[in-house]
Amino acid sequence: MSRRACLVIGAGDDTGAAVGRAFAREGLTSCLVRRPRHKDDLEKLAKSIRDEGHDALAMPADARDEDEVIALIGRIEREVGPIEVAVFNIGANVNFPITATTSRVYRKVWEMAAFAGFLMGREVAKRQMERGRGTIIFTGATASVRGGKGYSAFAGAKHALRALAQSMARELGPEGIHVAHVIVDGMIDSRFIRENVPDADERRADDRLLNPDHIARNYVMLHKQPRDSWTHELDLRPWKENW
Amino acid sequence: MSRRACLVIGAGDDTGAAVGRAFAREGLTSCLVRRPRHKDDLEKLAKSIRDEGHDALAMPADARDEDEVIALIGRIEREVGPIEVAVFNIGANVNFPITATTSRVYRKVWEMAAFAGFLMGREVAKRQMERGRGTIIFTGATASVRGGKGYSAFAGAKHALRALAQSMARELGPEGIHVAHVIVDGMIDSRFIRENVPDADERRADDRLLNPDHIARNYVMLHKQPRDSWTHELDLRPWKENW
Amino acid sequence: MSRRACLVIGAGDDTGAAVGRAFAREGLTSCLVRRPRHKDDLEKLAKSIRDEGHDALAMPADARDEDEVIALIGRIEREVGPIEVAVFNIGANVNFPITATTSRVYRKVWEMAAFAGFLMGREVAKRQMERGRGTIIFTGATASVRGGKGYSAFAGAKHALRALAQSMARELGPEGIHVAHVIVDGMIDSRFIRENVPDADERRADDRLLNPDHIARNYVMLHKQPRDSWTHELDLRPWKENW
Amino acid sequence: MSRRACLVIGAGDDTGAAVGRAFAREGLTSCLVRRPRHKDDLEKLAKSIRDEGHDALAMPADARDEDEVIALIGRIEREVGPIEVAVFNIGANVNFPITATTSRVYRKVWEMAAFAGFLMGREVAKRQMERGRGTIIFTGATASVRGGKGYSAFAGAKHALRALAQSMARELGPEGIHVAHVIVDGMIDSRFIRENVPDADERRADDRLLNPDHIARNYVMLHKQPRDSWTHELDLRPWKENW
Repeated sequence: MSRRACLVIGAGDDTGAAVGRAFAREGLTSCLVRRPRHKDDLEKLAKSIRDEGHDALAMPADARDEDEVIALIGRIEREVGPIEVAVFNIGANVNFPITATTSRVYRKVWEMAAFAGFLMGREVAKRQMERGRGTIIFTGATASVRGGKGYSAFAGAKHALRALAQSMARELGPEGIHVAHVIVDGMIDSRFIRENVPDADERRADDRLLNPDHIARNYVMLHKQPRDSWTHELDLRPWKENW
Repeated sequence: MSRRACLVIGAGDDTGAAVGRAFAREGLTSCLVRRPRHKDDLEKLAKSIRDEGHDALAMPADARDEDEVIALIGRIEREVGPIEVAVFNIGANVNFPITATTSRVYRKVWEMAAFAGFLMGREVAKRQMERGRGTIIFTGATASVRGGKGYSAFAGAKHALRALAQSMARELGPEGIHVAHVIVDGMIDSRFIRENVPDADERRADDRLLNPDHIARNYVMLHKQPRDSWTHELDLRPWKENW
Repeated sequence: MSRRACLVIGAGDDTGAAVGRAFAREGLTSCLVRRPRHKDDLEKLAKSIRDEGHDALAMPADARDEDEVIALIGRIEREVGPIEVAVFNIGANVNFPITATTSRVYRKVWEMAAFAGFLMGREVAKRQMERGRGTIIFTGATASVRGGKGYSAFAGAKHALRALAQSMARELGPEGIHVAHVIVDGMIDSRFIRENVPDADERRADDRLLNPDHIARNYVMLHKQPRDSWTHELDLRPWKENW
Repeated sequence: MSRRACLVIGAGDDTGAAVGRAFAREGLTSCLVRRPRHKDDLEKLAKSIRDEGHDALAMPADARDEDEVIALIGRIEREVGPIEVAVFNIGANVNFPITATTSRVYRKVWEMAAFAGFLMGREVAKRQMERGRGTIIFTGATASVRGGKGYSAFAGAKHALRALAQSMARELGPEGIHVAHVIVDGMIDSRFIRENVPDADERRADDRLLNPDHIARNYVMLHKQPRDSWTHELDLRPWKENW
């Protein structure tokens, strides 16, 4: 067993997929995680990476379930190889007036976007601390640094995730673990946007949608930074974004 | 019924007690909330305020329980009067290395310091929106704006609470509701500090412990600000604090 | 000589005037400073405060001139009394595309809004450090914390002023000097707004213009904070402000 | 004339030199600027880049002098080629107690670290706007985002520079110009550090000094980002840095 693993939690159709593909191209085995109900899409993604001649595995799991996360990471470390990079990429973008935000939504958004990030971060940190090296990257959003109308739940979860990333970075940097937070500020050229934003094609033609492959390059770049010059946080947005 | 209510969730021995007392002195009926196991302390606090000639009620409840919060706020609005001010003051300051942070702790800290704040904020907002006025104040900490070693759980919850406050302020300001966030950055002259910090007396003598009554004045000040000049966020710290 | 002085640099018609008046009502002698060409307005302001039975002096000076500032502060300390409060309130709000921003404008805005603040801050600090007490307040704006289109010059100067306030607070707090920064985020009910914003009356009627007297209350409040509970920064904005 | 230019203002021995070298390796002609009194060092640097087979020119100038900056940029555009990248890298790190900060120092630090950045930014923007493309990068520091004891002058200038970068980014992004700000947070492996920090060698051996070449890679990376995914700000620090 000489494989090195890249764990991507939230390996959906867009950013997560591109990140998994990008690290596979770097020679890592991408362990792609998404909820079991997306098992088929996940397998398709893994296969498309393998068809390129790279290594990828579909590993459906519920990232909010502590036992599943522990088992998942144990299995990768045992059966695939050491997790060199772990990327947490679960989004949960919702917008409701505060009075229409149910406790179920508030809790679920936090579980998906913050609690699951904590579980992944902690379990990966345990393994990487033994080796004195590794990279852990969290995907953020505008709501990570700014609350807004209707964003009580989403901004709450994203702020919590950013606090996790910053706390882990300050704690684990001196242990040799590079913890980073990427603020994606703008529409991604994703299936959701393509299906829901009427002028998506026009936006893409004008480079006003973030290309997932371009986002992914930054994750690889972060992983490759030598430890005398680590970035903890960077933002990404299209040139014409109003921010 | 002509009473006007001030709800204080987290009416412990220190800041919460001082805030409850301060608003009672302003003529409001302080509805003091703390977990049922602190019922006796809570009743003692309410009595000491009444003994001063002001109005206060002990209302033990679990602020993390949605049904209890809904019932509590319904009861105050029915039996006491309109909630003019609501203060969320539950702390949950813990510090653990990330690898020693259990999911139980991570979740519990969030439930106490963020989820309970969401429940209070939402329920109070519903009532205050009908009246087009009211004040909602959240107590923050250094960890609200900065993650740190060992603070994955606490900073996560406090960041989430700040995102809630900011999102609610942007949404509810135009509805006439003043939402504010107070960052308390330093040791409070609290029972915990008195019992655990060896040089607490020396610190107090040198004004290096935040006096809860002085903190409380700022909450009253925020409530009294006319709506053309509202403060959303202010910090408070002792003069010699290193920040 | 038993008078205590409040220095207000930038005692224009609006916020500065209100701050000067408010501190005079607190029993301090307001030393009102504005450029010599506004001498008559300044004298009128001082007289209107004296007519209320309080103490105020018109002291025209160019706050960007080091010698004048040194002389001014020396004269107040000698002839009026110790400067207990100093408020720096010079605005210089301009908006130009970067390519149309002359070096003259860029420099002048910095001299007015940052360099003059440095001169006042340093000279007042020298005196207050001898006494181990005093308050220094700087007026900020949205541009203090956020750059924006056309704001290269103004945001540059306001960011510099905020850095000054923060650096001085961290250095001088332990010396007993309370340094604060007030971020005014919204239109003030000022002569400029009344003359240039068509719906100013409508805005005022709806409490959407910051009332200078209400702003000033916060300056007095900051000055009165006991040293165990100092605020370094607070924001102020109308309830319906979009922020 | 088919050369494309990279302008580096502040091409000292360390970061600036590394940035100039890095862009030369990318095929650009590095136009290296430093004060005339460092002419020899500057020429040596240019020569060492040419000796590698790349293109570089020593162009001594005072970056605080508007006429010189205008002439410099005009000359490069005429005689070398279009400025594709401009990097502003002048540092001016000083630390004085506020009362010991002379107006000469306060002004000079601002002229070097902020005003000169404005001159470069504006003049380069004029040319790049005509072409609808280009990159402008400003070097920041911890003091760009945080004031501190003794840093009234330095933090003031660095905050102003960051406000410039942010204002220009918001204004010029939609014009096709990528404006970025790099926060270097830690000791750089520079001549100054090597000569003044006793344990510099130990630090370097332990990767606790930022390697200028590693910093420079990030500047090249920023320049190469496609316009759908631009970074405005990133930080860089050694793994064991306490932040």
